[in-house]
Amino acid sequence: MRKSAQNGILKSMMRQPVCTSTIETSPCAENTLNPIRKLVDQLVINPNPEKSLLKLSIGDPSVFGNFDPPPQVLKAVSDNLATSCYGYVPAHGLVSTREAIAKYYNTRTSPLTSEDVYVTSGCSDALRIAMECLGSEKRNILLPKPGFSLYQTIAGNRGIPVKFYDLDPEKDWSIDLDQLESLIDENTAAILVTNPSNPCGSAFSVQHQLDILAVAERHGLPLIADEIYQNMVFEGESKSFGELSENVPVLSCGGLAKRWLVPGWRVGWLIAHDRHNRLSKVRDGLTRLCQVIIGANVLVQGAIPQILETVPQSFYDDTLNRLKNAADIVYSELKDCPQIRPFKPKGAMYMMVQIKIDQFEDIKDDMEFVEKLITEQSVFPLPANIFGIPNYVRLVLTVPEDILREACKRIVEFCEHHKVGVPHKKPRAETS
Amino acid sequence: MRKSAQNGILKSMMRQPVCTSTIETSPCAENTLNPIRKLVDQLVINPNPEKSLLKLSIGDPSVFGNFDPPPQVLKAVSDNLATSCYGYVPAHGLVSTREAIAKYYNTRTSPLTSEDVYVTSGCSDALRIAMECLGSEKRNILLPKPGFSLYQTIAGNRGIPVKFYDLDPEKDWSIDLDQLESLIDENTAAILVTNPSNPCGSAFSVQHQLDILAVAERHGLPLIADEIYQNMVFEGESKSFGELSENVPVLSCGGLAKRWLVPGWRVGWLIAHDRHNRLSKVRDGLTRLCQVIIGANVLVQGAIPQILETVPQSFYDDTLNRLKNAADIVYSELKDCPQIRPFKPKGAMYMMVQIKIDQFEDIKDDMEFVEKLITEQSVFPLPANIFGIPNYVRLVLTVPEDILREACKRIVEFCEHHKVGVPHKKPRAETS
Ligand SMILES: Cc1ncc(COP(=O)(O)O)c(C=O)c1O
Ligand SMILES: Cc1ncc(COP(=O)(O)O)c(C=O)c1O
Repeated sequence: MRKSAQNGILKSMMRQPVCTSTIETSPCAENTLNPIRKLVDQLVINPNPEKSLLKLSIGDPSVFGNFDPPPQVLKAVSDNLATSCYGYVPAHGLVSTREAIAKYYNTRTSPLTSEDVYVTSGCSDALRIAMECLGSEKRNILLPKPGFSLYQTIAGNRGIPVKFYDLDPEKDWSIDLDQLESLIDENTAAILVTNPSNPCGSAFSVQHQLDILAVAERHGLPLIADEIYQNMVFEGESKSFGELSENVPVLSCGGLAKRWLVPGWRVGWLIAHDRHNRLSKVRDGLTRLCQVIIGANVLVQGAIPQILETVPQSFYDDTLNRLKNAADIVYSELKDCPQIRPFKPKGAMYMMVQIKIDQFEDIKDDMEFVEKLITEQSVFPLPANIFGIPNYVRLVLTVPEDILREACKRIVEFCEHHKVGVPHKKPRAETS
Repeated sequence: MRKSAQNGILKSMMRQPVCTSTIETSPCAENTLNPIRKLVDQLVINPNPEKSLLKLSIGDPSVFGNFDPPPQVLKAVSDNLATSCYGYVPAHGLVSTREAIAKYYNTRTSPLTSEDVYVTSGCSDALRIAMECLGSEKRNILLPKPGFSLYQTIAGNRGIPVKFYDLDPEKDWSIDLDQLESLIDENTAAILVTNPSNPCGSAFSVQHQLDILAVAERHGLPLIADEIYQNMVFEGESKSFGELSENVPVLSCGGLAKRWLVPGWRVGWLIAHDRHNRLSKVRDGLTRLCQVIIGANVLVQGAIPQILETVPQSFYDDTLNRLKNAADIVYSELKDCPQIRPFKPKGAMYMMVQIKIDQFEDIKDDMEFVEKLITEQSVFPLPANIFGIPNYVRLVLTVPEDILREACKRIVEFCEHHKVGVPHKKPRAETS
């Protein structure tokens, strides 16, 4: 066999000259862009070797070990590992898992059954099936600006046209509803909302949610609600769009990543809130779209009933208290710095800080702000350009308190050095 | 707030009549079809209540508890659970995991590094990124017939046109190479091959693999090799296409599902074999396509280095012995039944059995064969119609020996009752 194999190779090599051309990729692959990657790749990241690098850039609560999942989550998976759960389950999820999620998110106004729940490979996959099911090359989806960049990655992958509606920083990052409504056309398939918001750290008031629903209803549009931060509100009330919606079908996307602090475990869900049975076709589509990758890890999804039953309320409360505390610290450390303006968050795990560009001597935008902040102070927030809004940076609040305080101190010092009127010197010499 | 919320609902309800129309879905959702689902849904499944139902239909080795994963796999995940691995990792996989996979599949002829490996959410997801990256609405992919139905699901989802090349049952299910070559046109993006094969249980000879590569090379085409059953060959030699290919870029798709017997854990991989660096664009595309769902479960992928290191060879050998044993049993039980013809498998975990339709009095095709077999004998193989070939059924070999024997006995009895010349009576009365 070995002999004839080698003959085969020789024969095929003699047959013709070796083809050396580069293999082409599809437009889909070309258009699947992650704006974060693109901008972060452009960023010059060159920390000051004399200062420890303080990364406030990554929206992963597990990085520092101070926001670990509760022991009940680990126990549920460990218990599940002992129950021989190795096999395929329905692509849209185990019945028991779907039942548990339905029960957990059930409300008086929007009763849910397992049939309303699709278990997915992370909230990202829930967003994929929601956007693929409603949007198409001919049917656009409206996205928030600033907003989470994955929406654009999915839209690019699918060739779905998008339009951006603005969130107004002066009004608690609420939606400019007139502008939102003006963007709707006859080819609009859905409005996507993120609440609470990454990157804004904002949470809509219930009245604002109702107003958004009224816009959707006027145009007969469903809502895709990215509610991965649902219940993670530490200022004011928190309701899901599904609970509030009377007539607007809502595809709510969520998961274990943020509230249960296991983003790497890749289990999420989509919940179809559909009081008037307008999603019959969509449900079929969602089920089919789950079959492309045959669903989520069964070790983790099988543990969900136990997770939802056993994690105590005190764990959720504690997380919120610590996020609020972090927000308070950063806000009070930065609020008196004249060159920047922190926006107090109400939920999620982020804080937006405006860069008052005209207050700086030698910084032209958020990208340069971040580059210089890294070079001089080794502090790394994310330029909010990435989320579609210029001259803001996003800080992550799951960073330990001492790092947050130190980062704020350095940011203030940095602003002081670069404020209007201070002549531009070689930065490292200046700070050392 | 509650008051004003209710006012909001009332206002929005008064504003206009409630929209009741059904929400439309995208063409993508409509075209994401799973042929198995469609046919199984059509099947009348009405088992004989007097006989236990013997399911030989599901390609899931974990169903009966006789093909459990080795303890080393469970230990690796359990160990990993204790190491705080909760966070996001690169969308195309942990470096350590990619390194371990590269090392494991490295060969002298096709050296691999971590850069050649993409960790995915099951082999399904590897197939998705491979097909999405190469195929498009304008660029077709060639698929095997009979073949695994997921390829069509993905192609439908993506609008990728497909053409089918035949596997010849009379030649060990090898590819009709002339026909394969005749299907290639200027818009062909790739040839997809499955080896060893689901549903055929076949494994190509090395010479046949070289001949396939020669066809691809002549046309400058890359290969997508679904090698989820790689090394699961119990008759003859087993080589991967990557190892054998000199000039043809090979995207090899694999995973933990079959060889390590944990299909529900949803971790797979794509390995780019690319000796002449023709996949530079494709690699970029694959990396981007991984970002749509942000990769595979980290508990399991993080355990892969330990899994690949600690599972002993004896485990793999034992699996193969037991599969071969099962194949031998079924073959010898069925080979003398004149109405059917079993095809001895060489690999994977399936066996194809031809239904000699003209030998039956009252059965018109494999669908009816299966329906009646269920109704009368409570035996459920999969009609191979589902895989694109008429008048075969596929039996799963991971079923326990006693069930296999009993199923074969009933199949033979069933054929006896329905063979040409036996007048058609009411079946249940006949068998009871
Ligand atoms: C708003 C938002 N949606 C979705 C996700 C992705 O969630 P998952 O990790 O479950 O895919 C994130 C992660 O940062 C997010 O911030
Ligand atoms: C040929 C083939 N490819 C791919 C798969 C899917 O593998 P995974 O479960 O890793 O997605 C299967 C599962 O049956 C298969 O038979």
